[in-house]
Amino acid sequence: MADHPTPPLAVTMGDPAGIGGDLTLMAWLRREDGPLPVFMAVDDPDRLRTLARRLTLPVPVVEISTPEQAAAQFPTALPVLPVRLPSPASPGQPDPGHTEAVLTSIRTAVTLCRSGAAGAVVTQPINKKVLQDGGFTFPGHTEFLAHLAAEDGKPDPLPVMMLACPALRVVPVTIHQSLRSVPESLTTDLIVERGRITADALRTQFGLPAPRLAIAGLNPHAGENGAMGTEDLAVVAPAVDRLRTMGIAATGPLPADTLFHAEARATYDAALCMYHDQALIPIKTLDFHGGVNVTLGLPFIRTSPDHGTAYALAGTGSANPSSFLAALRMAGLMAGARERARVFAVPGIG
Amino acid sequence: MADHPTPPLAVTMGDPAGIGGDLTLMAWLRREDGPLPVFMAVDDPDRLRTLARRLTLPVPVVEISTPEQAAAQFPTALPVLPVRLPSPASPGQPDPGHTEAVLTSIRTAVTLCRSGAAGAVVTQPINKKVLQDGGFTFPGHTEFLAHLAAEDGKPDPLPVMMLACPALRVVPVTIHQSLRSVPESLTTDLIVERGRITADALRTQFGLPAPRLAIAGLNPHAGENGAMGTEDLAVVAPAVDRLRTMGIAATGPLPADTLFHAEARATYDAALCMYHDQALIPIKTLDFHGGVNVTLGLPFIRTSPDHGTAYALAGTGSANPSSFLAALRMAGLMAGARERARVFAVPGIG
Repeated sequence: MADHPTPPLAVTMGDPAGIGGDLTLMAWLRREDGPLPVFMAVDDPDRLRTLARRLTLPVPVVEISTPEQAAAQFPTALPVLPVRLPSPASPGQPDPGHTEAVLTSIRTAVTLCRSGAAGAVVTQPINKKVLQDGGFTFPGHTEFLAHLAAEDGKPDPLPVMMLACPALRVVPVTIHQSLRSVPESLTTDLIVERGRITADALRTQFGLPAPRLAIAGLNPHAGENGAMGTEDLAVVAPAVDRLRTMGIAATGPLPADTLFHAEARATYDAALCMYHDQALIPIKTLDFHGGVNVTLGLPFIRTSPDHGTAYALAGTGSANPSSFLAALRMAGLMAGARERARVFAVPGIG
Repeated sequence: MADHPTPPLAVTMGDPAGIGGDLTLMAWLRREDGPLPVFMAVDDPDRLRTLARRLTLPVPVVEISTPEQAAAQFPTALPVLPVRLPSPASPGQPDPGHTEAVLTSIRTAVTLCRSGAAGAVVTQPINKKVLQDGGFTFPGHTEFLAHLAAEDGKPDPLPVMMLACPALRVVPVTIHQSLRSVPESLTTDLIVERGRITADALRTQFGLPAPRLAIAGLNPHAGENGAMGTEDLAVVAPAVDRLRTMGIAATGPLPADTLFHAEARATYDAALCMYHDQALIPIKTLDFHGGVNVTLGLPFIRTSPDHGTAYALAGTGSANPSSFLAALRMAGLMAGARERARVFAVPGIG
């Protein structure tokens, strides 16, 4: 089999007053750990140079004009595809005047991924309030990405949040809402939709030809056949049936408390959870620093660290790069898996 | 300091058709692992001898007439304080005619603990349906223990379930009920009561003079100041305040997803969780086989393995003794801690 190098990952600028730049610089210094996949910053080269000096990090910054140049530069310098800020960035001091540059970085990274010139988008954190003050009209990062992903004349795709670490992948069906409102929000259609998108992404972006989904029950012991809540029988079980009818290897509803130890995890590729804490408790218990957000349902790979802009730490050198490093590694693995799937899909090569 | 030997643990018979006897025999064979604390079975010596032959386990069974004899016998034989069954037990074939003997074993173990002759009650699983067919009038094992614990003329104490493993202790405030019904069931009084009993038990039964309680929020991110559910502000936070007013080091409401990784666990002695899966997901994820039930709020120590009678495995040799071994170890640690607390409480010795 010929060598098929994976294109570089595109790391967005994120909020230039947040810890994103710190993390990009720190990650390049750790490029031999693992090693990390080749990445390029879609960022302002001057602000990264200034930040490196401030942090006394020995990171040579090199401007590139196309992603193809990244791999050759990466061993000796941080390759940066330039997006210029209109004024200098100050760590910890967000500036709505930087909005257009922040959005341009995201747009550019997406365009490069969609053309195949970049392998994945790894987004540094933004602050949506600050961006909205600067004219940003989307509710958040993910909705903006979904909009950029929309095909001409079609509605934006529905993005689905996955949390992933080497030990576990979880997808919450409902997310940021009160526990009280969860039973009403949970519908068979919603579970099926999330399950279908998850199975699809496991195939196309994680290189798993026959993904196995474990569907958690809503109630203790998955309701014990109706003794503790009816939703598992009335809402979750029919969703499992429909997913199976679609050819997806789904099992459930399964008691959530016995779903996340090592033996149980070996039986599935992703767990679909009914609410926020049911998904996030196990993954943050297993791997607090290595958890990564993966946005499923987009026509490109997107990962992001599991934290915000952390203004108070920006420019201080105290930011913890663990989650960003994990986001780079996860994006690299996914891009590689997709690349191999593509190559094998060409008749006569696989 | 003089030697203060801890009294033996009292292991109940449990359902003689279940795996309890198998586990008691298996545990004695592993008495050097750790080593295990000295224990005696409050059981039928003949049924244990028959079972040992069936399982081809080399366990000499010795009848004792007082708990004081257990320690001397334990190295060479399983000490059994006799409770005779009216007819032979058949593994996997429950017999309501054995009810009185099963209850006598529990009563005897409790009496010995309350007098100080035994260090703790470790209960083997029962089947409440079978016992009820034989005249048992309590809803379950724990309620029967609470009844045996009641002081003359006073109401039964409120038992509180804790799940414990070496890495974590959790107490669910609500337990076996639908997720939908949790917000309505959760009251400030209930959280305070569970917290008070937990702190009390940590002091008196776990040897922690100043126990620290972490109180989980009900909603994602503990409600984010009301943005995702009002219960954390209206119900949980006042409970934390009241516990603090009582002199208990309680903190919360804390986001549940970030409460169970190693760094977080180092900051508290027990986590009070608002519902079943919030408590059981983290402990079963961290230690699936080593989790133990501890019943708090009783005037004696009681632990139990985290499984049922498992009739299908009884008498086959296939039962997994991990949870029962963990229940013995936990009871031994707790009895030792209480014993030391007692000794140090005598003026002039501490």
